[in-house]
Parts: sequence; C-alpha cells; structure tokens
Amino acid sequence: MNLSQGLAQLVQSGNVFFLIWGAVMVFSMHAGFAFLEAGSVRKKNVVNAFTKILSDWSVSTVVYFFIGFPLAYGITFLTPISQLLGDQGFNLAHFFFLLTFAACIPAIISGGIAERAQFGTQIIAGAIFVGLIYPLYEALVWGRFGIIGGVSGWLANFAGVPFHDFAGSVVVHAMGGWLALPAILILGPRLGRYLKGKSMPLPLHSIPYLSLGTWLLMIGWFGFNVASAGVMTRVSGLVAVNSLLAMVGGALAALVFSKNDSVFIHNGALAGLIAVCAGSDIFHPVAALIVGIIAGIIFTKCFVIETEVFKIDDVLGVWPLHGIAGAWGGIAAGIFGYEFLGGAGGVSIVSQLIGVGACLVIALIAGTIVYKFLDAISGIRLSKRDEMLGSDLAVHRVKAYPEELL
Amino acid sequence: MNLSQGLAQLVQSGNVFFLIWGAVMVFSMHAGFAFLEAGSVRKKNVVNAFTKILSDWSVSTVVYFFIGFPLAYGITFLTPISQLLGDQGFNLAHFFFLLTFAACIPAIISGGIAERAQFGTQIIAGAIFVGLIYPLYEALVWGRFGIIGGVSGWLANFAGVPFHDFAGSVVVHAMGGWLALPAILILGPRLGRYLKGKSMPLPLHSIPYLSLGTWLLMIGWFGFNVASAGVMTRVSGLVAVNSLLAMVGGALAALVFSKNDSVFIHNGALAGLIAVCAGSDIFHPVAALIVGIIAGIIFTKCFVIETEVFKIDDVLGVWPLHGIAGAWGGIAAGIFGYEFLGGAGGVSIVSQLIGVGACLVIALIAGTIVYKFLDAISGIRLSKRDEMLGSDLAVHRVKAYPEELL
Amino acid sequence: MNLSQGLAQLVQSGNVFFLIWGAVMVFSMHAGFAFLEAGSVRKKNVVNAFTKILSDWSVSTVVYFFIGFPLAYGITFLTPISQLLGDQGFNLAHFFFLLTFAACIPAIISGGIAERAQFGTQIIAGAIFVGLIYPLYEALVWGRFGIIGGVSGWLANFAGVPFHDFAGSVVVHAMGGWLALPAILILGPRLGRYLKGKSMPLPLHSIPYLSLGTWLLMIGWFGFNVASAGVMTRVSGLVAVNSLLAMVGGALAALVFSKNDSVFIHNGALAGLIAVCAGSDIFHPVAALIVGIIAGIIFTKCFVIETEVFKIDDVLGVWPLHGIAGAWGGIAAGIFGYEFLGGAGGVSIVSQLIGVGACLVIALIAGTIVYKFLDAISGIRLSKRDEMLGSDLAVHRVKAYPEELL
Repeated sequence: MNLSQGLAQLVQSGNVFFLIWGAVMVFSMHAGFAFLEAGSVRKKNVVNAFTKILSDWSVSTVVYFFIGFPLAYGITFLTPISQLLGDQGFNLAHFFFLLTFAACIPAIISGGIAERAQFGTQIIAGAIFVGLIYPLYEALVWGRFGIIGGVSGWLANFAGVPFHDFAGSVVVHAMGGWLALPAILILGPRLGRYLKGKSMPLPLHSIPYLSLGTWLLMIGWFGFNVASAGVMTRVSGLVAVNSLLAMVGGALAALVFSKNDSVFIHNGALAGLIAVCAGSDIFHPVAALIVGIIAGIIFTKCFVIETEVFKIDDVLGVWPLHGIAGAWGGIAAGIFGYEFLGGAGGVSIVSQLIGVGACLVIALIAGTIVYKFLDAISGIRLSKRDEMLGSDLAVHRVKAYPEELL
Repeated sequence: MNLSQGLAQLVQSGNVFFLIWGAVMVFSMHAGFAFLEAGSVRKKNVVNAFTKILSDWSVSTVVYFFIGFPLAYGITFLTPISQLLGDQGFNLAHFFFLLTFAACIPAIISGGIAERAQFGTQIIAGAIFVGLIYPLYEALVWGRFGIIGGVSGWLANFAGVPFHDFAGSVVVHAMGGWLALPAILILGPRLGRYLKGKSMPLPLHSIPYLSLGTWLLMIGWFGFNVASAGVMTRVSGLVAVNSLLAMVGGALAALVFSKNDSVFIHNGALAGLIAVCAGSDIFHPVAALIVGIIAGIIFTKCFVIETEVFKIDDVLGVWPLHGIAGAWGGIAAGIFGYEFLGGAGGVSIVSQLIGVGACLVIALIAGTIVYKFLDAISGIRLSKRDEMLGSDLAVHRVKAYPEELL
Repeated sequence: MNLSQGLAQLVQSGNVFFLIWGAVMVFSMHAGFAFLEAGSVRKKNVVNAFTKILSDWSVSTVVYFFIGFPLAYGITFLTPISQLLGDQGFNLAHFFFLLTFAACIPAIISGGIAERAQFGTQIIAGAIFVGLIYPLYEALVWGRFGIIGGVSGWLANFAGVPFHDFAGSVVVHAMGGWLALPAILILGPRLGRYLKGKSMPLPLHSIPYLSLGTWLLMIGWFGFNVASAGVMTRVSGLVAVNSLLAMVGGALAALVFSKNDSVFIHNGALAGLIAVCAGSDIFHPVAALIVGIIAGIIFTKCFVIETEVFKIDDVLGVWPLHGIAGAWGGIAAGIFGYEFLGGAGGVSIVSQLIGVGACLVIALIAGTIVYKFLDAISGIRLSKRDEMLGSDLAVHRVKAYPEELL
C-alpha cells in the first residue's frame, strides 16, 4: 500500500469511526427521552415510558432500514455483503447515524401524548412517520429529491440559496413537534387535567429522572450536531461551541424567566439546543448564545400559554419545545446566518421561511390524517378504566417499583 | 518528520484513541451491570449490587493486569516506562480494552447469585476467574495458545477454519453464563423463592433502574463490538449496524413473546446483542436481525423454563441470557456466516460447535470446582439471618435510602 | 489537494474531534457531580442540587467564554467567524475542553456547602472563581503567564524544571477543594449536624444516585485525563491505564479501610482519579496503583478526621477528596515521576511543592475574601426557616418527587 492509499484508508476509517461515534451519542439520547418522560409523568405511567421508547426505537430501526432510508437517499442494503463492506461500511454507518435522527420522531411525540395514549396504535403511528412521512421531508431537504434543501433544487433556484438545516432544528424537531400537536388535540387532555375549565397541573413523578433524561439528551446532543458534519474531515469546533452556548443561553433564560424553576431550566437547555441545530455551522458564537436565550424564553412563555391559556394537555411540552423552538431555529439560521450579523453567509430568510413552512404543513396534515385514521380504525386512547389504573398495570402488568405492592 | 512517518504516527494515534474510546464504552457497561442488578433485586440488596460490581471491577483490574493479560497474550507491563511509551501505549490501551471484557465475568455471575451470596467469597471467585480461567480460554481463542481460534491452530488444521468469535459471544458471555450456572445451583434458591415446590417470584426493586442499566449496556455495547476490530483502520460500519439490528430483533421478539412485558423487552435487546457479537463482522444485516430475533425468543422461553420448570433461582436470568444466547451466537456465526446465507464466509459449523463446546466444558468444570472449594473452605452463602436482613445492612451497614430509616 | 495537505487536514480534523470527544466526556462528569450531590444530601435538597449544577455550568460557560479563557490564554473569540473557522475551530474546541475543567470549580464547592448555602450568592461566587481566580492560577501553570508551569518560567529557572500538572490534580481539584474550605467554615455546619459537640451524621438520600454520580464521574474521567494530551497525535495509552489503576487502587483501599462501606468505595475511586491526574503521563502503572491506594487511604482517614474530630460539616467531603487528594497528586508527581521510581522523569519535588503551595495560598485567600465579601453584602446562608424546609421548596417551589405531596 502506497502513501496515497494509506491516507485514503485512514480518512475512510476516521469517517466511519466518527459517524459511529455520533450515532452512538444520539442513540444514548433515546435513554434521555425515556427518563425525561418517566420523570415527567405520574408513577403509574413510568414503565410505559421506558417500554414505549425502546419499542419505538426498535420498530423505527426496522422500518427505516427497509423503507425510510432507501426512500430518502435511494440506497438499499439488500445487496451482497461484499458491497456493504466495500467502503468499510460507511453507508451503513451513515444509515445508523440518520436512524438516530428519524427515531426521534416517535420519541418526541411520545412525551406529548403520555399517560393516555394506547401503546399499540402509537407504535403503528411511529412506524408510519419513520417509514414514510419523515423520510419524505428528509428527502426534500437532505436527500435525493433535494427540492427544498438541494443546492440546485427548486428553492435554490427560486430564492438564490437552498433551505439550510445543518443538524435538524426543522427536519427533526419541528417535524416531531408539529406531528405531535394534532395527536395531542385529537387525544384530548388526561382525565382530571382540566376541571370545569380550571387548570389542575398533575404532579411529576421525579425531578431526578427528569434531570437524568435532560443530561443524557444534552450530552448526546454534541454527537447530534458535531457528527452532522457527515465526515470527520469536516468536523468543526464552531458547531460544538455554538451548541454549547445556545444550550446555556436557553438554560439561563429559562432560569430567570421561570424564577429558579427546575423543570424550566432543564427544558430551557434543550430548547436552546433544538434551536441551534439548523445554524450551528454558520452562527457566530455570540449569535448562538442569543438564539439560545430566545429559545429559552420561547419555551418558558409558550408552554404556559399552551397549557394554561389554550388548555392543551401537552405533557412534556413537546410542541413549544420541539415544534416552536425548532421552527425558531430554522428561522434564526436565516437571520444570524447572514454575514452582517456575524454569520458565515449563504442563507436566505425567504428560503428558511419556506422550508419551515413546508415542514409545518406536511406535519400538521400527516399527523391529523394518521391519528384520525388510527382513531377511527382502532381507537388511540386508553379506556377510562385503564387510564385511571395507569398504563403500567393496564398494559404491562407491572408497577415501576413492584416491591411497593407488598 | 517526513510524510511516511507522519502518516504512521497518525495511524498509531488513531488506533490508540480508538481502543481507549472502546474501552471507556465497555467500562461504562459496568455501571449498566450495577443498575440492572440493583433494579432486579429487592431494595434490601441494592447497595450490595453497587458495591459488588465496583469491587469486582477493581479486583479484576489488578489480577488481569498482573496475571490474566500476561497469561493470555504473553505481554507483561512490568517493564521500563520507556518501553510502555514506545508504541504510544498501544499495548496498554489494548490491555484496557480487553480488561473491560474480562471484568464482565464476575459482573455476569453477580446477577445470577444475587441476594444470597457472600460478598467476600464472590470477590475471590471473581479474581480466580479473571486471573486464570477466563484468560485460559481467551488464550485458546484470541491469545497466544490459539489452539481453537488461531489461524494455524489445531482446530484450523482439523476443521479447515478456526473458531470465529469476533467480539465474544462465547469467550465472554457464554463463559460468564456457564460459570454462573454451577454457582447458582450450589448456592440454591433465595429464601422464599420456591415454597413447597411452588414458584413465588420475588418482586423487583425498580424498573427504572433496570431500564437505566439496560440502556447503559446497550449504549456501551457499540464500543464492545465496534472496537473489537482492534485498530481504527479496521473499523466497520457493518459491525455497528449488525449489532443494532440484532438488538432490536431481540427486543421486538421479547416484546411480542412476553406480551408487552417491560423486563423481557429490555433483556431481549441484550440477548440480541450477546448473540450477535461472534458474527457481527461477517453477518449480512438481515441475518443479524434474524439472529437477534431468535436470541430474544431463546431468552424469553428459556428464562421461564429455567425458573419455573427447573426451579433454578437465577435472579437476573444470566444463564439463559449470557450462557444460552451466547452459545447460540457462537453457533449462529457458523450458520449465517456462510456465504450461501449472505455471510462473508470463512467459517465452519464444526469449528463453531467445538469452540462453543470447549467453552461450556471449561466453564462448568471450573465453576463447579471453584464454588465447591470456596463453599468447603469458608462458605459462599449468607447466613439465614443476614439474607433475611438483606446484604445492605448485613454487609455494608447502610440502606439504599438511609433517610427512610428515620 | 496534495498528500501533504491531505495529511495536515486529517491531523487537524483528528485533533478537533479528539478534543470535542474529551470535552463531551468531561461535560458528562457534571451530570455526575449533580447525582453525587443529589444522592449525598437529604431528600429536601435534591432539586436544588440538580438546579445548582446546571446553573453553575451555564454561568461558568458564559464567564469563561468572555473572560476566563481570554485571561488565561490570551485568545478571544470576539473575532470574525472566518477566523474562528480557519483552524476548523480548533481553538474553540480547546476552549470547550478547558471550560469543562474550569466549571468543575463551582461543582466541587457545591458539594461541600450543600443543604444550607443560598442559591443566588453561590452562583455569583462560582462566576468570580471561574472568571477570575481559576484562570489566574491556570495562566500561571498552563497558560500565558507560565511563571509556575512554563518551561522557561520563573520556577523552571529556579528549580530546574517547571511544575508538572498534566491533567489538573492541583489546577482543578486542589483549587476547588481549597476554595471550598473557607466557604464551608464561614457557612458553618447544617442545623442539627453537631448537637452539643456531638456529631450526628445526617442521612443520605440515595446510594443509587451516589453510585450513578460516581460512575458518571469515573467514566468521564478518561476524557479528562486522556484528552489532556491536547492533540490526538499525543494520545497515550499510558495515561488511560494509569488513571484506571489509580482509580481501582483508591477504590480497594477505601473498601478495606472502611470495612466494605459503599460510600467510601465510591469516593475512594474518585480520590485515586484525582490524585493521578498530575502525573498520569509520567508514572509507571505500578506507581499509579500505589498513588491511588494512598489517595484512597487519605480520603477515608481525612474525611473522618475532618467531620468527626474537627467537626467541619463538609457534606460530600470535598476538602479531603479534591483538596487533600489533589494536593497529594501534585506532590506524588514529584515522587513517582522520578526515573529511579520508574517514572519518565523531568520533575522536581521542589517544583511540585511550590506549585501546590501556590495553589493552596491563592485558593484560601480568594475563597476567604469572596465568601466573606458576599456574606457581608447579601448573606450566603439560607434562613433557618428555609434550611429546615429544604431548599427544594424554599428556593425552587417543588419537591424532588412531587407526587409524594399528594
């Protein structure tokens, strides 16, 4: 092997390792989703949270492997193994990394519909989203259709530059949040959440679990954003530090605006991370801090408006968190991405608004159709008796702490 | 430094970093073992689980550093520091990575004998296994004896190809599971587990801890399998995705066969991962999915047969999980590794059966001798009083949640 | 791009990735700090622990970004984005990595002053330390002043070789521990901790959280020490294995000396890791084991002397753990670093004693001034009523397990 071949092999090895590292980091975020939900629901629905996230992950893997990824990128793995090994499995590593994004969709929705949705129908809904709806929009932005995100796609021709979503503020988070909204509305609030028009917040199970879930999400997020470079040779310290600054901006804003509330500071950090994904490669660090601060305020205010004014029972606040802060992230890339605001340029606010708008329209329509359809076919809500009993005993025949039965 | 030297140094740096990354990933699995056990026992034995896993890890490190690794690979570190630094500490990183495998042995056994084994004697048993028994079989397969696994060893000459165990379905998991079986049998069931021939399952402490432990194991497993390539330049996306698909196959099979049981879906994922280790480098992804599904069914069925029919009190089900699913993994590499089943070839079902058989024989004999010997010398079981009190108070003088005493 | 440029880009990419990996590992240690504290306090101060660690992290990020890092290294990021991207963001990645060290200071102090310190003033104290005091000493050792640690600094000229602190036994841990001591003394013990001169240990909330916190710290520590190489091309397996051996040495020593106490074995592992940081690049592995064993004994003995003899209410034992074991680590580098004790040489016990002494003096003076000042201005201690109620309800208006209110 000569030097040139040696270098090429080392580059390829580094790229495969880099993507696997990133994929594993984002995989670990799914444990975060599980603990965030387990901490935010009541004790009688804790086992359900863990079982649901792992089931959703597993089903997502299968449908995205066989359907979603081939749909979005035109690459199938039903080929001889020699072909799969030809590039040291780079395409497979790429699939793994993108799966960890796709599987966020059911995990996001899960938090909004917790404590009253049926287990089986939610798995089916998740499979439809990960197998078809998410890959469709993904293909428009990152994948083979490229109409919105492609450098020579329709939007690039229309507005001068394509829609920019580096790590999925819109593709992943806004999509998840806006798919969740119809599900939450169709399901309606949990029993006892609103009594005679009065809001009666239901108690959380565990702040430590909520915190553990948040930490797992925050930690894994650095894989989410950093490995979105796609190959190690394009890794960027800027992406890491922008993610960091938006995260702490969101946390601090939520801390201040919520007057030291622990639930808000944790979710505020996540809001900052969600908002920074889209432009983390082109923001100046100071802009990333501002984007995160605004995201933290957005979440803190919108969650209260959603649940107290509109009386929408979004248990984990996934619509303001992923939906609104994600949309804000897409728009922010079209603001702070401009060079005159310190950004690296190559963005257009028009493209960003169109890209975000397309996501919201697809998500709202698809979410409404899928949940209305499933509701008509088999029902999507637990029976009143099962909801009162809790899905742990009703669906999984076990309590979170079985000794406590004794 | 010329280009050639620069490239060589970068390759070596990448390899050392890669192995350390893998070692740390598998080290984190030991936190997983601790939480899986802490969640699966009763509250009175939770502190013991944490203390035992960390003690076992610590003792394993010392004996494997001074005895086990030198025994298996003929490399000692009792040499001048200049020599240790010569290869940027590659050999040391290699030791660290392989230690994380060796230390799985006491961690696996720990789950089977939980709630009634003595603390001190179990540490001694672990030291014997990690210092002598495990390295012996390791040397036969991966190490300097190479009789079973060496490309020019006895088995390679006898059956055409050597025994193939890429990441330790057999070397680590089957060994651990079949060493645990005699320990479990010699100890006998926990007080109250079987009353007058009737099975009375004892309650778990915490599904959240069980889930946390499983997640830590699942996440770290990608280090276990991916870094088994040994050097970064041989990293393979196929290994990662095969691990992934076997994991979700095991989880989904267990979910279906257990009718939504949360304990089984978590352990099913682990069963899939255990089974895929051996052939993760040579399976086609679709085969990996099948191997995982079968592993999930094996665990679900065998655990019930073991504990309900044979009335063996294997608390965490380590014999069906690590022992049987591990053996299945070794055999599966000799089935789906063949090219006509989509595999990369270079395997023989005869070699796989001999390799697996050798492991089982060594483990059963060694496990029986060690535990019988320790039982005769000092006893291996807690006194009836200590078992009823719980090992937390009896051995460690503290409860898991000390405030609850008040 | 020719070969030479390709290799240079790959080296730079590897270095950036390596530092980000390390930074994320140490970031995850902050979840460890949170759980270690949450497990070690009473249930009424658990939410406070999580909120405090995340707030401290967030404030630390902002002040170290704008003030601390520029102060210590003379590099500011308030420059055009083109400049930040020029080196693939290497400087930003370097900032991220060093921030994770700086932010340990308030996290360390937090554990000592838990359960009775005010939330707001502690955040201000942390900001002062991370923005000014820590960077000052950091600049003397690692940074641009280099008087103590620079190869041509004052100490190097005075004693022949500079102060050696590879990964921060002194710069981070001793600094944190000795800053905490005056805070602990000025605050005084928690209500009820000592009654009429009699020590009345207050119960811990949760051994599982204490264990989880310790595991997160132990795992992340391999990023702390390994990535202290600064660039991937200087990665060393020796650093990893020395960290490992010191960790298990500390754990085993604490296990033996505390007679199987679970709290001590966990903290003993941390003591070993703290002590090995300084010399992990120059110790022989056997020496690292010894350094860790001594650190484990130091912690076990000093914690008892501190809390029982001197009646200092250091809740998590951060002064013996970080302060004394950290100082021991700095001195140990000046013992086992010598070639005649197996080390790689290049150290002087005189330099080590001066470096450690300077840290202690700066920390004691700064800690006393800052806490005395804050105490005079606004008070640093909770009101008696708030302390009895617990800071969860008093400051954050929520309990750790809100359902338990019902």
